[in-house]
Amino acid sequence: MVETIAAEMTAFAQLVPLEMTQTEIYQAVQEDTLLNASFWANIALAGVAILLFVYMGRNVEDPRAKLIWVATLMVPLVSIASYTGLASGLTISFLEMPSGHALAGEEVLTMWGRYLTWTLSTPMILLALGLLAGTNLTKLFTIITADIAMCVTGLAAAMTTSSYAIRWFWYFISCTFFLVVLYILLVEWPKDAEAANTAEIFNLLKILTVVLWFGYPIFWALGAEGLAILDVAITSWGYSVLDIGAKYVFAFLLLRWVAANEAVIANQPSTFSIGAGPESGAGTPADD
Amino acid sequence: MVETIAAEMTAFAQLVPLEMTQTEIYQAVQEDTLLNASFWANIALAGVAILLFVYMGRNVEDPRAKLIWVATLMVPLVSIASYTGLASGLTISFLEMPSGHALAGEEVLTMWGRYLTWTLSTPMILLALGLLAGTNLTKLFTIITADIAMCVTGLAAAMTTSSYAIRWFWYFISCTFFLVVLYILLVEWPKDAEAANTAEIFNLLKILTVVLWFGYPIFWALGAEGLAILDVAITSWGYSVLDIGAKYVFAFLLLRWVAANEAVIANQPSTFSIGAGPESGAGTPADD
Amino acid sequence: MVETIAAEMTAFAQLVPLEMTQTEIYQAVQEDTLLNASFWANIALAGVAILLFVYMGRNVEDPRAKLIWVATLMVPLVSIASYTGLASGLTISFLEMPSGHALAGEEVLTMWGRYLTWTLSTPMILLALGLLAGTNLTKLFTIITADIAMCVTGLAAAMTTSSYAIRWFWYFISCTFFLVVLYILLVEWPKDAEAANTAEIFNLLKILTVVLWFGYPIFWALGAEGLAILDVAITSWGYSVLDIGAKYVFAFLLLRWVAANEAVIANQPSTFSIGAGPESGAGTPADD
Repeated sequence: MVETIAAEMTAFAQLVPLEMTQTEIYQAVQEDTLLNASFWANIALAGVAILLFVYMGRNVEDPRAKLIWVATLMVPLVSIASYTGLASGLTISFLEMPSGHALAGEEVLTMWGRYLTWTLSTPMILLALGLLAGTNLTKLFTIITADIAMCVTGLAAAMTTSSYAIRWFWYFISCTFFLVVLYILLVEWPKDAEAANTAEIFNLLKILTVVLWFGYPIFWALGAEGLAILDVAITSWGYSVLDIGAKYVFAFLLLRWVAANEAVIANQPSTFSIGAGPESGAGTPADD
Repeated sequence: MVETIAAEMTAFAQLVPLEMTQTEIYQAVQEDTLLNASFWANIALAGVAILLFVYMGRNVEDPRAKLIWVATLMVPLVSIASYTGLASGLTISFLEMPSGHALAGEEVLTMWGRYLTWTLSTPMILLALGLLAGTNLTKLFTIITADIAMCVTGLAAAMTTSSYAIRWFWYFISCTFFLVVLYILLVEWPKDAEAANTAEIFNLLKILTVVLWFGYPIFWALGAEGLAILDVAITSWGYSVLDIGAKYVFAFLLLRWVAANEAVIANQPSTFSIGAGPESGAGTPADD
Repeated sequence: MVETIAAEMTAFAQLVPLEMTQTEIYQAVQEDTLLNASFWANIALAGVAILLFVYMGRNVEDPRAKLIWVATLMVPLVSIASYTGLASGLTISFLEMPSGHALAGEEVLTMWGRYLTWTLSTPMILLALGLLAGTNLTKLFTIITADIAMCVTGLAAAMTTSSYAIRWFWYFISCTFFLVVLYILLVEWPKDAEAANTAEIFNLLKILTVVLWFGYPIFWALGAEGLAILDVAITSWGYSVLDIGAKYVFAFLLLRWVAANEAVIANQPSTFSIGAGPESGAGTPADD
């Protein structure tokens, strides 16, 4: 009788996933000093960046330049929320890796909140870049849609624990969306920026963005989510350092230029164009 | 042996969070008549409001006036869905409060569905107000982005159960976004509304909105989410009464004015402007 | 003593919801060949459709025609992600049906990922149709908002396990939003398409869309979510076949027409209009 109960209890324990509470996850993060520092360092930096960027944009008046400023300012604002979510344990989980994975059967800390908040912060980066380049609505819609799809499928990749193969299939889909983002950044917008007289600053920010954004799928592949060559705290620092470059340094360079060159931005057309038809305002002044 | 099993079972029971099923939450709500009434009263009111507003806007023809009407009509539509989610137990949870909280260690009913659906309903209120004031795209983007960020970080505040300090840090971030919303409502849009000849109705709705929206963070702070001075049913009624004023009364006043003053709205520019450059349509008729 | 433990354990087992892990759900899907095929068939078809549509649109140059192409291309892209989520077990759950339901108390496989991803794919279909018809911003905003609300309340209907009556109340709300979508598709846009010289192709796609979209609420009502007359695998095939028509066939017909008639699209105004005021670009060329 007692053995039956014990056997049933063991079976039962295997049925119920031993999910950790948020408090337990929070404590696990607190105990890993290196990991915890990768979160709080960015909360502090995002806070400083917000104050600095508010100050830098205080005299911007033109609505288009102001929209670039607001979109750019949203980047550290989303970031501070993103890292607070990670540090509190609200947006991270311990997930059991599927067979085939290097850590199969182990509970691995997954920072899924990063992928979730990238769906909010990266469109702001691309909106600011697109406004700088004088994009039309079609290209802006394409790059932002592809970017959000890239982040959401990256999130799905991290959350899939049933099949190792499907994790990499998600990764492949996500990278395909990344190619669309790269195409507009490297082929379409440089031409628009030429016409809008913003080629110099656009090309600098384009190179910064493209180089650093390549780092994210690389860290995914090498980190605990993928091949598990790097450990969780190192992967987290990898993302945190990439975020510093791709977000705060990026935003600083962009806002410094916008504050000093507001007139160049103000000279662009005042509406997003979606066609070459009547009332066109695409890329060039509509002086017809 | 039996003691060992008992001990193991106790340990096991502490490991597994005793989450309530949706049916159990639903029953708990049903048993709290006061709380349940705070949900169903608003479902009924939202239903009446929807029918009334459809009737009030039946003759609106101008596309811009119609867009204000549709955005305003979405407010009770989101509301009826929001309260159905709360009443069914789908979007509420019993969460264990962290140490430091007045109810530390207790399971407290958290109506997180409210914060979630505010991310959908409050942008509609601001869109309607912005169209009434004749906003440009930059201000509309800024206020709606800040508003959504305010609601999402409010949601995060309510969902964080690992640290009492981080709950209030979220609250502080959320209130900072509220300041951005207030700035545009109180400083920017009144000037635009003056130019658009809608100052009188805009200022009435502005005061109604600002006064009532202050109530939400106050109820959060005093209710079970914050200092726990007010009990759950009272807090819920607080939110429900605020919703009646900030949503249904607001929408009624706005729609009554729009139906009677369609020509004033129709006279505004037909595109959102994002700049002062060529083809400007910002706030004033583009008669250059 | 032993009986006490057994009794306590039974009570405990009833308290803790016996949630299946993602791996167990994945295995359950794998074992149901018919169900699994309804997912993988669409992953394969979506893959073929993506390659075909990229090829079909390779020469489209006009920004408005290109925007239709991108929105249409997003449909199979969201689809491939949606079905990968279903096949991996990431976006399906076994939920216990409430009393009153034909399968009350049983754990029923709920494909909630379908409703979730429809919030992303169906707005793309409507955006493409609206651009084809030459919609103004008000109608586009109305139909897309109603469409998203329709999908989200459909998701809520599927996720509500506490009350059978509330499940159907969600269904009723969702169908009300569907009426708004139908109104614009059947009454408003045909007039716009007439003015934009796209009536022939618009009316074909309109009929295809309206007829097939009626299938979704019918399968919901007859399938396991509703009256449980059809079993899960049959319901899933129902949705999968509807998706083939409403998504891939739809997109093929639209893209074939756009590739051959780019000039008709290019002739439409280049901005979305939100009013009849100065600078109007609504539906007709603004030659005033």
